[in-house]
Amino acid sequence: MTGSPALQPVDPRVVQQVLDGRWAHVRQDARDQLGTAEYAVVHGESMAEARARVTGLAAKLAATGQVGLAFPAAYGGSDDAGGSVAAIEMLAFADLSLMVKAGVQWGLFGGAVQALGNARQHEAYLPAILSFDLPGCFAMTETGHGSDVQQLRTTATYDPATQTFDLHTPHAAARKDYIGNAAQDGRMAVVFAQLVTQGQGRGVHAFLVPIRDADGSPAPGVTIGDDGSKAGLLGVDNGRLGFDHVTVPRDMLLDRYGQVAPDGTYSSSIENETRRFFTMLGTLVRGRVSVGGSASSAAKVALEIAVRYGDVRRQFAAPGEDREVVVNDYLVHQRKLLPALARTYALAFAQEELICTMHDVLSAPEPADESVQRELESRAAGLKAAQTWHATATVQLCREACGGAGYLAENRLPGLRADVDVFTTFEGDNTVLMQLVAKGLLTGYRDAFGSLDGWGRAQFVADQVRETVLERTAARGLIQRLVDAVPGRDEEVSVLDRGWQLRAFEDREQHVLDGAVKRLRKNAATKRDRPFDVFNDVQDHVLAAAQAHVDRIVLEAFVAGIERTPDAAAKALLGRVCDLYALTTIEAEKGWFLQHGRLTPARAKTLTSVVNDLLRELRPHMRTLVDAFGTPEAWLNAALLDEEPVRQAEMAAHDAALRRAGDEPQQAATATDLAVAPAQ
Amino acid sequence: MTGSPALQPVDPRVVQQVLDGRWAHVRQDARDQLGTAEYAVVHGESMAEARARVTGLAAKLAATGQVGLAFPAAYGGSDDAGGSVAAIEMLAFADLSLMVKAGVQWGLFGGAVQALGNARQHEAYLPAILSFDLPGCFAMTETGHGSDVQQLRTTATYDPATQTFDLHTPHAAARKDYIGNAAQDGRMAVVFAQLVTQGQGRGVHAFLVPIRDADGSPAPGVTIGDDGSKAGLLGVDNGRLGFDHVTVPRDMLLDRYGQVAPDGTYSSSIENETRRFFTMLGTLVRGRVSVGGSASSAAKVALEIAVRYGDVRRQFAAPGEDREVVVNDYLVHQRKLLPALARTYALAFAQEELICTMHDVLSAPEPADESVQRELESRAAGLKAAQTWHATATVQLCREACGGAGYLAENRLPGLRADVDVFTTFEGDNTVLMQLVAKGLLTGYRDAFGSLDGWGRAQFVADQVRETVLERTAARGLIQRLVDAVPGRDEEVSVLDRGWQLRAFEDREQHVLDGAVKRLRKNAATKRDRPFDVFNDVQDHVLAAAQAHVDRIVLEAFVAGIERTPDAAAKALLGRVCDLYALTTIEAEKGWFLQHGRLTPARAKTLTSVVNDLLRELRPHMRTLVDAFGTPEAWLNAALLDEEPVRQAEMAAHDAALRRAGDEPQQAATATDLAVAPAQ
Repeated sequence: MTGSPALQPVDPRVVQQVLDGRWAHVRQDARDQLGTAEYAVVHGESMAEARARVTGLAAKLAATGQVGLAFPAAYGGSDDAGGSVAAIEMLAFADLSLMVKAGVQWGLFGGAVQALGNARQHEAYLPAILSFDLPGCFAMTETGHGSDVQQLRTTATYDPATQTFDLHTPHAAARKDYIGNAAQDGRMAVVFAQLVTQGQGRGVHAFLVPIRDADGSPAPGVTIGDDGSKAGLLGVDNGRLGFDHVTVPRDMLLDRYGQVAPDGTYSSSIENETRRFFTMLGTLVRGRVSVGGSASSAAKVALEIAVRYGDVRRQFAAPGEDREVVVNDYLVHQRKLLPALARTYALAFAQEELICTMHDVLSAPEPADESVQRELESRAAGLKAAQTWHATATVQLCREACGGAGYLAENRLPGLRADVDVFTTFEGDNTVLMQLVAKGLLTGYRDAFGSLDGWGRAQFVADQVRETVLERTAARGLIQRLVDAVPGRDEEVSVLDRGWQLRAFEDREQHVLDGAVKRLRKNAATKRDRPFDVFNDVQDHVLAAAQAHVDRIVLEAFVAGIERTPDAAAKALLGRVCDLYALTTIEAEKGWFLQHGRLTPARAKTLTSVVNDLLRELRPHMRTLVDAFGTPEAWLNAALLDEEPVRQAEMAAHDAALRRAGDEPQQAATATDLAVAPAQ
Repeated sequence: MTGSPALQPVDPRVVQQVLDGRWAHVRQDARDQLGTAEYAVVHGESMAEARARVTGLAAKLAATGQVGLAFPAAYGGSDDAGGSVAAIEMLAFADLSLMVKAGVQWGLFGGAVQALGNARQHEAYLPAILSFDLPGCFAMTETGHGSDVQQLRTTATYDPATQTFDLHTPHAAARKDYIGNAAQDGRMAVVFAQLVTQGQGRGVHAFLVPIRDADGSPAPGVTIGDDGSKAGLLGVDNGRLGFDHVTVPRDMLLDRYGQVAPDGTYSSSIENETRRFFTMLGTLVRGRVSVGGSASSAAKVALEIAVRYGDVRRQFAAPGEDREVVVNDYLVHQRKLLPALARTYALAFAQEELICTMHDVLSAPEPADESVQRELESRAAGLKAAQTWHATATVQLCREACGGAGYLAENRLPGLRADVDVFTTFEGDNTVLMQLVAKGLLTGYRDAFGSLDGWGRAQFVADQVRETVLERTAARGLIQRLVDAVPGRDEEVSVLDRGWQLRAFEDREQHVLDGAVKRLRKNAATKRDRPFDVFNDVQDHVLAAAQAHVDRIVLEAFVAGIERTPDAAAKALLGRVCDLYALTTIEAEKGWFLQHGRLTPARAKTLTSVVNDLLRELRPHMRTLVDAFGTPEAWLNAALLDEEPVRQAEMAAHDAALRRAGDEPQQAATATDLAVAPAQ
């Protein structure tokens, strides 16, 4: 088949250890402490029931030590940013509403106070934030400004006479919207608004604003609305906040990056306003990393349900054969589930690498070098987009793979699908995030704060691209060796050669990017009077470059992860899964590779046949691959996992009894009939 | 750009007339009679509320004449099968739960009594079915047999002594499942079961079985379960039915295709059991046609919401330009919405053609020729799969295109997404249906009832393929002329040449099919001992052939539809939409076309650039194209359609006031910044 020794059976716990990675202890602690039915989703709840349950669990979570990991040890945390992401990814296996609720409280709200506040503010608020005694909101997004957060319209105008800010929502489109914890629980909010002092705008800053009184009624001047029923995440109370000239004391400005003196004098260690804004946002990168990883948890749960169902579920009787054929034996079923599983593995390794980088950047005693910070943000953006799109698609295909059963709430998939849907939108719309990735590539990770001087410097940019694109954070030496070992001519190399795969991904990224830069340069020269069109006309090309970049990053992380795997059998299995990820990605982009002479027609044909061989080879290991996610059984919470094996056994026993009685159950007579029977 | 005269503005009502087609009067009657808020969905309902509302509306619908169209005039219908599909497609614009509820009652349940019952049964039950005084179920699917309905395990064993059938569910996997109208309203069910008489199985037959007493409690021996909460379609009471030796009088067998005499003697006009079963199923083709068309209605509603939102929604300020830039102006946004819109148009024409064929076959005084019947079923299967997959993907992309607003229930898209999801599964799992299409192609629409004699006849099959594949139901002469007019060498022809497009689709279908047949033949020779693998190993290839077939059918229907359009401006507009459908389909399959020498790399590059030109050209007509769906405003029921224009106007006024005050709102300074701003 694939010309390699046959894969050996692998203990899923060995693979789990590899996936659990650097924060294995955090992940195992979550399984041990929280891995019960109490933390599992409840199907078919009303919005009110879901909100009440999730709020109660959030309060309980505070006592587990699982949610405060990122905070300073002085306030009961562990100074462990990476661990906090691992912990929230684990919550996502159990219940995405609970994960989002925790993410809002301890990630966004608490994280903003921690990252943007001063020591006095930490002292005053972090303990109550950690204990959930002070539920809070992260109020950035406005109804009219979803993606363009630098242009928020809420204003905070300083008055030296009273030493207060006047926080104001100028019109309906400027109300804060989709704000978690706002509709029901939040007592305080970090509100992002344009700071104005001494008659001058200083850009977006964050303010700590009480939004509810002790009795739960809105604070004076604050209007609270409820976003009401949503597609999913019913346990999260999203709402709207309006401010009618609300008075905010001077010391409630979270002033790490910008201070206002009593007399209204503004000061900041970062002079450039745009740069200051993005530096503030940069400290909040953890949220985006958490969202991407949590979406992947959802994909893992869906795949485990679909793979286990497909291992017992029969569809048509196998013609003229004794063996039991189950749904997972069908090539087309494998063609759906296995590439999704392979990509889930690839993304898991990329996410682990991202968490490590993030942790090291955030934990370093000195602020990171600007280029390192920018690259972290770019990867966080790209992997957030990649993982959330993948999760939406994967949960959907798993729903379809489970047929009608997949549509019943009791089988988990409907809730998972509805909950994960918005992950492609919040914490940054995916398309906008991919533009951010593209921007990083176009400037070679440089000049991220300023704008390019028109497009005159595009040539310079193009020159930088080749070297900067190939910067690698992990296993650089290994990957370079693999790439260098590939002989010059493609036709002589197996498509299973890892170096060839790596080179193919790399070539695509470079070539697409080069092309985009050339077109941008040309546009800049010819469309000087239409600056919007300069970029817009090549938007698809630029996004394709970002996608190629993310694909390559992910493959390299997978290769590095395999290298770290000590167990030989597990390593071999992961190697095959990596082949499947690499080759199905190339197969999906076959048009590009053929169009640019990177694949011959003959080799493209081989590719498809090797992919099908890989599916056959991996078929016996599907169950191992999902078991290795280490999801506590109580969290899966899909009725079909318990009921289907029983039903199928009963059915088989019944059929056997009929055969013994000489009353053969009718069987599809030939292979053709497999294709003919209609369905209802 | 595309080298043609610029498109003129078109009155959407002119396009609507074209789309409304042969049953325009039925569609307009639905708008006039039902186009009010009363029939619109209600957001955020509980399951109990949704069920009560939908049941009430179903009863009301009975009086409108909209739901009985397919039934004989003698019972209050109009003998109008095609009209009944048009009517149910209209209901789908308003509320998919109501559409499914109506589909179960008057399509599946009533339709089965009509198609499979005798005159006495019509007389006894049709009036109460039409009036909804007798709500009923269509109980075919079993928990353990989703797609393999010929192998159902429920039995109906005849006892001549009592002249009754003993209806029995032998084990849990044989219970009827996902049955609409079962959990709450149904009083009777058409139950499909293996008929056994005189000790001999006669295959699946349908029986009319009371399932509830007058007081609503389950009939003796009948167990009724509730499928409970589902992803969507909350207004439909799906449930489970079990039968513990339930006594069914002999005259409750729906005996049009198989009769049991008092003494138990079985007779049928169709000797072959498999053929009899598929003939029975064939009479129920209307259900599948309705489901495909209704899914397309959902796609239309989603597109109208997303296009109208994108026409007012701003994202980033346009750098250095006065003009207002809205989301629909972004190339990548157009790249999402416009190809989906083009495919929706293409499918609309294909669906109209399918309804016409179905109507003519079902209304003909004589039963249709077997090959005509088989082709109808194949098209119904293929277009059901194509439309439901397209609807799921389209509603999803529209949800994402509306960002956070798209996730709120009040904006319709969440409900639409959740409701339409199961359309890919019910009335035949899409993958299984595509196998049915492939089977039709492989046998050249012949031998549809028997199984091929092993694969020995594959050569014969291959010989038939070329001619039969190209049978066309509509505008055959026109299409042949267009294809024939293409010069021999591709490079000389514009990709906008309709003949070239048609030939490209045709070539792909023939070539993929030829390849599949060759591989099947080879497998049949080399894998005689593994009959399952003979087919399974090429399952992906066979399904690709079916997909190529459906794509071609759809394009031809679009071309025929344009030809029927009298208005020149509308015709030109539809022509461009057709170009976009054809070219984005080819672009998506670019890998295949390049691999098989049907596109040169240079031409593939041209293709992408022409597609982008088409997007620019169609941009000003997006609103026209969605207005032409003729959806009553009260049915759209998305808060953002009312609120967003007001909010954006307020925001613009506010910004203008700031500018007058000399306090310029901050603007992204250059095109680069469009790509840099992160999002939250």
